Formats: sequence, structure tokens, C-alpha cells
Amino acid sequence: MDAQFPTPLVDCLQYANWSRGVFEEMRAGGVHAVHATIAYHENFRETVANIIAWNRHFERHPELVFAGRTGGDIERAMREGRTAIFFGLQNPSPIEDDIGLVEVLQTLGVRFMQLSYNNQSLLATGCYEGEDPGITRFGRQVIAEMNRVGMVVDMSHSAERSTLEAIELSTRPIAITHANPHWWHKALRNKSDTVLKALTQSGGMLGLSLYPHHLKDGSNCTLQSFCEMVAETASRYGVENIGIGSDLCQDQPDSVVTWMRNGRWSKVTDYGEGTAAAAGFPSQPQWFTNNADLPNLREGLRRAGFSSEDVAAVMGGNWLRFYTQSFEPKP
Amino acid sequence: MDAQFPTPLVDCLQYANWSRGVFEEMRAGGVHAVHATIAYHENFRETVANIIAWNRHFERHPELVFAGRTGGDIERAMREGRTAIFFGLQNPSPIEDDIGLVEVLQTLGVRFMQLSYNNQSLLATGCYEGEDPGITRFGRQVIAEMNRVGMVVDMSHSAERSTLEAIELSTRPIAITHANPHWWHKALRNKSDTVLKALTQSGGMLGLSLYPHHLKDGSNCTLQSFCEMVAETASRYGVENIGIGSDLCQDQPDSVVTWMRNGRWSKVTDYGEGTAAAAGFPSQPQWFTNNADLPNLREGLRRAGFSSEDVAAVMGGNWLRFYTQSFEPKP
Repeated sequence: MDAQFPTPLVDCLQYANWSRGVFEEMRAGGVHAVHATIAYHENFRETVANIIAWNRHFERHPELVFAGRTGGDIERAMREGRTAIFFGLQNPSPIEDDIGLVEVLQTLGVRFMQLSYNNQSLLATGCYEGEDPGITRFGRQVIAEMNRVGMVVDMSHSAERSTLEAIELSTRPIAITHANPHWWHKALRNKSDTVLKALTQSGGMLGLSLYPHHLKDGSNCTLQSFCEMVAETASRYGVENIGIGSDLCQDQPDSVVTWMRNGRWSKVTDYGEGTAAAAGFPSQPQWFTNNADLPNLREGLRRAGFSSEDVAAVMGGNWLRFYTQSFEPKP
Repeated sequence: MDAQFPTPLVDCLQYANWSRGVFEEMRAGGVHAVHATIAYHENFRETVANIIAWNRHFERHPELVFAGRTGGDIERAMREGRTAIFFGLQNPSPIEDDIGLVEVLQTLGVRFMQLSYNNQSLLATGCYEGEDPGITRFGRQVIAEMNRVGMVVDMSHSAERSTLEAIELSTRPIAITHANPHWWHKALRNKSDTVLKALTQSGGMLGLSLYPHHLKDGSNCTLQSFCEMVAETASRYGVENIGIGSDLCQDQPDSVVTWMRNGRWSKVTDYGEGTAAAAGFPSQPQWFTNNADLPNLREGLRRAGFSSEDVAAVMGGNWLRFYTQSFEPKP
């Protein structure tokens, strides 16, 4: 059925070491859209340099990837057999202290921005801080500006109170693009039942993560265990509010996870979800090592009891609807 | 006739002190599109700040102005009774030494870039330099990149050899957005017959200037004298290759013309086209002091012998065709 009437396949978070090889795996997996992180701790000018690097990819590999801007670009990717790349920021550092940069970055293709990344930001609190005072004065204005220009608030790495306040303050549904429920695996980055209820009851989306630190049994998590969790998540929060956000960091050297965790803010090494003894990237589960493996999830979801329609919704149909609703400016 | 079947009215160069009052005059004059300078000597980040200031104008005055991106936006402006604002750079300083910034600025709406402004730049020579070695190595690559992404090469303030080489190197027609023929008024900024022939024979456009230093008799130039020059220009180079680029610098304090001429490069005051005794902005001719006066040119052109069709072409139809051809990326 899929070959004749393909359904959208969307991965709502990756940060691979981008290359033609990775793009070819996207095509091998029939991946129609990827939300690609373009900045962790970069300032505005450094983020522009990363956009320029992406523009070079688009120029060199036009038969594989193109710049995604609207939900319609997912449908274009399905028609043309290519992959639409949507930009996102894991931290608000690229907007510096300038609210005008929200619209500038939206014009340059940024469609998701996390309000904080593990630490306190100018906007909100990260999930590793001891105290969470909630959304700041600047944060309230930035949420309103993101709502206006069509940039999705992403609270994947944010703390509980800030996340609940962002859901409340945002006039458009928000997303947690890459995390799993805390009731399945008690990682600090996974989300409480309270957050997931508030997120989904307001129309927001949860992207389920395949990053080993977010998985029960880590790198040894089975496809069956993951898909049973997806089924329980769908049952609790609605199948229409979940998708995939794999957090795939393929082909990256361990220096990159050190950058993610430490940026320029720390003089002592922060190991984040890792430990001093296991400081690098964890190994991916065998059933998901690159984009070409993404279709494996379809069969896993069917075995966990999902109908064909619900498999299609979780694998990309829900993100297609959400992208279509979220990326247009509001007059 | 104009009221029932309006023809496009385009001014291909202004640098006013932008305000709601100026936008209201654009509407009073029925001006459908303005090419607005957003940078003289600004670097990339400063240019982004100027774009942010424009975004604020678009947000505050949406019933008067909007961001123009394509030739079709002129037609949209005609339908909606608004003015489309197209961004341009008078100097390549906003791209710094980074060819990737050409595409980034095109994405942010920049549609024209001068390769030099009076002085030598990294790309080309300006019209006030003693020597003109022609287009540089970086300049050749930037012209190719501008051709690819859909940004028009503008040589209004460039020197003769650089201009002729840019016409030759560019695979798409270029523009001189604001200057007059040197044979009419022998100002250094006005263009030689050789340049104007090469420009127009390659499909390029000349925007005729209403800035007093470019006019015979300066501020006392009559509408009749100006329109007779337009007729002679049309006769020599083709009516299809000319339009208006008024160089209107309305409501600007004289500190702005000092910035244009001196940027950050000069420790002694350069007076450009002015003199120490007349260092500021010259007075506009009485028949063109603001956007609401632009329609006066129609009657002047008719009296100088232009048909209704040719008046419509010079007042905006030619720019509409040129914008439509020039702003799309080349695959």
C-alpha cells in the first residue's frame, strides 16, 4: 500500500553530521521531512554561518534535499521523492537579546526554537537547573512574537514550570519535539504526565525520541518495548498528538556531544545525560541506526496494535497537519 | 484612463527618512513599488538591524506598505492599493568577505546590490577613485552568485571600466538604478554614452535620477528639461530600457549625507558631489519634493512627446518586466 499511496514520513529532530551519505539514507528510508537542528549555543552570526552551510548542501544535492518552509513542502517532497529540511534551534542563543531576530530567523527558514537548553536562558529555565522561576519578561514577548511570525515553541530541554507556562502563554500549540514519557523511563529529559497532558490537551505535539538515554534499557531497548510505549502514549494522550523526533546524532564525533553539553558556559566538564565513564554518544539500538531504518517503526507499530491509519498518523501525518497549522504568520 | 486601468508606478531608488507620513505620500502618489536602500556602509549585522526596522514598519503600517519579493508583488500592490518595498544595498559591505551572505540577504529580501559605492570595494571600483582596475577575483564570484540567487547587480556609483566588465560578466541584465546620461549633465555620477549603450544593449535598465546633483541646473532644473532628456535617452537607448530611480532622500538630516560620503573610512570630510560651502542635501526641484509628486512626471513625459503606452512603460512597466525577470533564482 505504501508504495502506491505513500503516507508522509517525518522525523521531527535530527542533528546528524550532514553529508550526501546521510541524505541518501533519507531517500532510502523514504523520509519526506526532517527537522534539523542548526544551532545549540551559537550566536546569530554563527547561526547564519550554519545556514550558509545548509544552503551549500541544497545547492550541491538538489535531487536529494531542499529547504522546507511550509507544511505543503512535505507534500512536495512526497511528490518529488526528495526530503524537505526544516531548520530548528535547540537554544535561543541565536536571537541574542534582540526580539527582531525572531522574524529574521523565521524568514531564513527557522521553524522551531527551544526556549532553553538544559540551563537557564534569557527566556526560560532548562531541565538541569535546580530552580525554575518560569518564563521571563523577555520570554513572554518572544513567545508572542513566535506566535505572530510562525515559529514553534519547543520545550524539549526545558524545566517543568517553564514548560507548563509556555503551553499556557502560547496562543498556538507548542511542541516537545524529542522526548519520551517519564513514566516509561525516568530520565531527567523525559516528560511528566502533567506536562504531557497539558501539551496534548492544548493541541501540542510530542515527538518520541530514539536517543538511547531517553529509552528504557538504553541502547538495548527493543523495537517492541518502544512501540508498546508509543501505544500507551497514544492511549493516554491521543494518537493525533504524537509523532517521531528521533534525536538522531549520526556520524558525530564525541566532541559534538561535549559542545552540546558545555557550549562556552562551563570550565568544568558537564556530562549531561552521560557520565565521566561514558562521556560520548551512546550506541543506537540496532533497529535504528540511520534514516534508512525509520520504516522499521511502521511494522513495529502495527505489531503493537496500531491500525494502518494510525501508523500513518504517527509516522508523519500528525506532523504534516501540525506543520501546516504552525508555520504561517498570523496577520 | 489611469484611474480605471492603472499602470504600474515604480521608483527604483529612494532613501527617505521612512515614516508613516512618507508611506502616506506613496499612497497619495499611487506609487506601487519602491526600491529602498537599506545600507550604505553597514556590515552584515547592522544591515540586519535595518531589516528589523523595516519589519517593524511592515507590522505597524500593513495597510500602506509590505515587503516586496517578486515582480508579482508589484501587481499585488496595484490590486491592493499598497506599496511594495524592495530592499537594496548601495555598497557590498553587508556581505563582508563572505559569499554565502549573498543568498542569506536575498532570502531576507535584498534584490539589488551595488558592487561599489564611490570608493574601491572588495568587488569593484567606485566612480571617485583615480584608478579602476576592474572587477576583482571576489567580484567575479559574487556576480555569478547574484545571478544564481536572483539579486540584481547595480553599478550606479561604480567607475567606467568596472561597470563595463560587470555588464560583460553578468549572465543576467544588470541595472544602473539612479543616474542620468553624462551628455546631458556632466556630473561624475552620470554615465557615459559607452556605458549606457553597453547597459541597454544587454537588456539592462537605467533608472533616471531626480537628485539635484544629477540634474542640469540642479535644484532649478525644470520638468520640461528633465522630460526632454528622458525623450532623448529613449531615442538613443530604447524606451524599453529606462525607468525612474529618483534617489529621493526625503526628510533626512544632513548628517545622513555625511554618513553616505564618509562612512567609517575617512578622517577628513569628503564632500562627494557637494562642496564645503554646500555640504548638505541640495533642495529638490519644486515639481518633485516627495512621492505624491511622482505622477507629475506623466504629464511632463506626454508633453515631451511620449505616447500613453510609453509613459506607462517609463513610469513602471519596464521595471515591472525587469523585476519579474530578475528576482527568481536560476536552477
